[in-house]
Amino acid sequence: MRSYILTLNCPDRPGIVNAVTGALLEVGGNITESAQFGDADTQTFVLRTVFESDRDESAVGSALEDVEARVDGRIRVRPADRVPRVLIMVSRQDHCLLDLLHRRRTGDLPIDVPLVVSNHMDCADIASRYGVEYVHLPVTTDSKAAAEVELLALVETHRIDFVVLARYMQVLSNEVCRALAGRIINIHHSFLPGFKGPRPYHQAHARGVKLIGATAHYVTVDLDEGPIIEQDVARVSHADSPVELATIGRDVERMVLARAVRKHAEDRVFLIGAKTVVFP
Amino acid sequence: MRSYILTLNCPDRPGIVNAVTGALLEVGGNITESAQFGDADTQTFVLRTVFESDRDESAVGSALEDVEARVDGRIRVRPADRVPRVLIMVSRQDHCLLDLLHRRRTGDLPIDVPLVVSNHMDCADIASRYGVEYVHLPVTTDSKAAAEVELLALVETHRIDFVVLARYMQVLSNEVCRALAGRIINIHHSFLPGFKGPRPYHQAHARGVKLIGATAHYVTVDLDEGPIIEQDVARVSHADSPVELATIGRDVERMVLARAVRKHAEDRVFLIGAKTVVFP
Amino acid sequence: MRSYILTLNCPDRPGIVNAVTGALLEVGGNITESAQFGDADTQTFVLRTVFESDRDESAVGSALEDVEARVDGRIRVRPADRVPRVLIMVSRQDHCLLDLLHRRRTGDLPIDVPLVVSNHMDCADIASRYGVEYVHLPVTTDSKAAAEVELLALVETHRIDFVVLARYMQVLSNEVCRALAGRIINIHHSFLPGFKGPRPYHQAHARGVKLIGATAHYVTVDLDEGPIIEQDVARVSHADSPVELATIGRDVERMVLARAVRKHAEDRVFLIGAKTVVFP
Amino acid sequence: MRSYILTLNCPDRPGIVNAVTGALLEVGGNITESAQFGDADTQTFVLRTVFESDRDESAVGSALEDVEARVDGRIRVRPADRVPRVLIMVSRQDHCLLDLLHRRRTGDLPIDVPLVVSNHMDCADIASRYGVEYVHLPVTTDSKAAAEVELLALVETHRIDFVVLARYMQVLSNEVCRALAGRIINIHHSFLPGFKGPRPYHQAHARGVKLIGATAHYVTVDLDEGPIIEQDVARVSHADSPVELATIGRDVERMVLARAVRKHAEDRVFLIGAKTVVFP
Repeated sequence: MRSYILTLNCPDRPGIVNAVTGALLEVGGNITESAQFGDADTQTFVLRTVFESDRDESAVGSALEDVEARVDGRIRVRPADRVPRVLIMVSRQDHCLLDLLHRRRTGDLPIDVPLVVSNHMDCADIASRYGVEYVHLPVTTDSKAAAEVELLALVETHRIDFVVLARYMQVLSNEVCRALAGRIINIHHSFLPGFKGPRPYHQAHARGVKLIGATAHYVTVDLDEGPIIEQDVARVSHADSPVELATIGRDVERMVLARAVRKHAEDRVFLIGAKTVVFP
Repeated sequence: MRSYILTLNCPDRPGIVNAVTGALLEVGGNITESAQFGDADTQTFVLRTVFESDRDESAVGSALEDVEARVDGRIRVRPADRVPRVLIMVSRQDHCLLDLLHRRRTGDLPIDVPLVVSNHMDCADIASRYGVEYVHLPVTTDSKAAAEVELLALVETHRIDFVVLARYMQVLSNEVCRALAGRIINIHHSFLPGFKGPRPYHQAHARGVKLIGATAHYVTVDLDEGPIIEQDVARVSHADSPVELATIGRDVERMVLARAVRKHAEDRVFLIGAKTVVFP
Repeated sequence: MRSYILTLNCPDRPGIVNAVTGALLEVGGNITESAQFGDADTQTFVLRTVFESDRDESAVGSALEDVEARVDGRIRVRPADRVPRVLIMVSRQDHCLLDLLHRRRTGDLPIDVPLVVSNHMDCADIASRYGVEYVHLPVTTDSKAAAEVELLALVETHRIDFVVLARYMQVLSNEVCRALAGRIINIHHSFLPGFKGPRPYHQAHARGVKLIGATAHYVTVDLDEGPIIEQDVARVSHADSPVELATIGRDVERMVLARAVRKHAEDRVFLIGAKTVVFP
Repeated sequence: MRSYILTLNCPDRPGIVNAVTGALLEVGGNITESAQFGDADTQTFVLRTVFESDRDESAVGSALEDVEARVDGRIRVRPADRVPRVLIMVSRQDHCLLDLLHRRRTGDLPIDVPLVVSNHMDCADIASRYGVEYVHLPVTTDSKAAAEVELLALVETHRIDFVVLARYMQVLSNEVCRALAGRIINIHHSFLPGFKGPRPYHQAHARGVKLIGATAHYVTVDLDEGPIIEQDVARVSHADSPVELATIGRDVERMVLARAVRKHAEDRVFLIGAKTVVFP
């Protein structure tokens, strides 16, 4: 028996789940997990179903082709054990990178990481410890365009499923944002929509907030405006300097980013307009 | 169109969801919400589906009778707007009672409360403010048996769906626990399984814990051992006396109890052995 | 023995605590609680000390006069059991008002509430239940100026120490904000600085945030920009409508407001520029 | 100017803070942080004061000798930049060790770690990456006594200030517990006092709790009964297996342990009987 993850996105209407479960019965599918949501605003229906079957991938796929046509939507099925290939981008700060790579090693995160890309050399040592190739792509005003071309080429040649900006401090061009739409996750070190842009911990300190946060979101051409996947906060006090906020914040950042990466890697996140559906 | 809540509990096997959704299609059902869980330990499957249909309750029920037989389980369907009738029991402390009655009035809690029963008169005024009948059932060693007979009679005559012990400080007899099995919710003022029994805030103070909690659970004959529905905690410090722990704890108690009552009232809680499945 | 609360705000320099504790020794003071903070940005020092003494208020005050001059600051001492007089303003929503009045009755909140003022009649019943005078001050474009004059007169005649806007939906004029500077607390139903202004739950829903929050802050002439006293958040999901966000948010609002009112009532909050110091 | 941390533990009585601050004035001390607590149950007073002075350590110490006698207590002063030397013990799981060593490297944790001791070789690689000596001390029924002798010798020769059991799975003998009393911190993977002893995540799964936790505490001869320094929890659901509870729990464990180690390393933790005072 093999385990498969099915995801479906289609216009909402009666009969969808019946059609899908009917097709799964045909291939001897036994559902082990299922979650669904109908979005009232857009009349969109999304479904994530995990099932076991003794048929191979193409048999399963064929059985669902009919359904896809009937529900006028898009069905994807993949073996649960074929984990996504992730390219991680970092700058100087290493806490998110170390966290992701260690979770990957212990098996907590179901991803492969063939490549780390950075505009600095600071994190090369960590990548090397975890046996991951490290590509140094320096970014200057002059080199940025070429660096981005190379980045997209790396995504292509390494068959990358999605990109994670693990405290990557460069703004990507609109071209890259569009090329990787829905496949690139950023961690921003504030509780969005508060404190967009640079130096959010300094902004938080100046405003005197009593909680700081972090937000994992898909990258879009509008800086820090992309669909939010996960957020969390930590309590701070008047006594905390911006440096101490950053120290406290690093824990929130890495936890929030790890949760978002896991959700995306397990196909639990669906994009509906500018928002996400995230299944538990 | 009327909205219905369907709940199903049966042995896990392929085809259950297909069978249910097939029956719902027959009555023109449009699913608006659905959650399911297969418990690996017991091979039990539970399902909660909310759907809209223009058929009446008996038509819907008939359509599902066949399915019930096929899945060898138990299906219940009720109109979503037929809210459960709840009997609340209290002693002297009123914060949970006030909280439940106010949430009921504002529409936050989908319940009816025909009756408050207490071994004291302290909360009679609050019940009266919210227009709820208040029955004073004093409990002494001698009167306990008679009081419990009367309690069960009140449950019967008022067609009570479930009972909530909102800081009711008497231990119920095994007979009452059994008679109301799965239909009686208690709030215990500790993070179970820590600090069972009396005066948990004093126990917490003596142990020097850094968080205190509250636990909503179904009542069973084993005191404070029933299946847990909901728990939460609040941070405390060395500076907090047992009285201050109790003050902080009251907020946790009423929040946890309100959440548990809502979950149960919306048919989101399933009992599997000594544990619960609680759908979001 | 009587318990006193001393608060001090002065330029930071060596010897302040020694001077204060020296004066307290002169009046036989026994310190039971003390917290202090030196703000590096502004070189401001704040101190809150609770002490017991068998001297009366004027004797204690005299002993500290000298210190006040030496530290070039402002010292206030009041008996701990002389609780502040609070005027609560509400509009139609009653959950924060009920919460404050009930906490006041159970003794959780050390305040007196001689008066509730509202631009609507909706909450008159709750005020009456708790034996509090209710003043109906309707606000229209034409009547606003007169209503505010009356409000300030009520503050004066009832010797109000501070005002709490417990979901009062009118914007106060700059004159009122200035007249009550540092003595008026608002609860805003978002995690500021996100979602300022009207309908924050609708804004939160549109943005797709994964946590919603509430913020208690001092009112200033800049709407939703005043110094923050307390904040908290609650987890929400894609499935929550704006109405459900508001339901979840009400619990956060009342908890955050109650904590802020308690902190202010116990003289634990100090204003330094646009920020607060809040002692545990 | 050098920064010093002063800690004091003595019977509660008037004049203590005045005496201490008077002595600090003599050495030109400028207080930058101070926290105090009087425990009502035991009439014990504890104080932690951070101050700057241009005098050297012995001058500062001399100035405080008198005070120590007058308050009948115990005063310790150390330069704030002389960080404690910590010996970390681990078994097979590496997440807490990695976390502590990485926080030490980034400067988040003010400790030195001259030595990691383990009954297994699994974590040798991580210690080596961070340049820390790794001592393999296998523990069998026969070798346990000798291993403990060697452990205490290592504590001595490396001038270890305190020991951290970072998921060390062996029970230490009463002799070691007593020899290191107040200087040895353990992380237990449950919310104590719930689920003491082995396999707490399995216990938690069997009981069906809705939150799991971790507890950092001083080790005493009574297993999992030592004074609690820090605790926290994470939400779980019916769908989480014991393995998934352990994955979620690892994050709680390392956060709680890191906070406890920081608090202890900064002299913010005081033992009073079986409980701790932990200053923010």
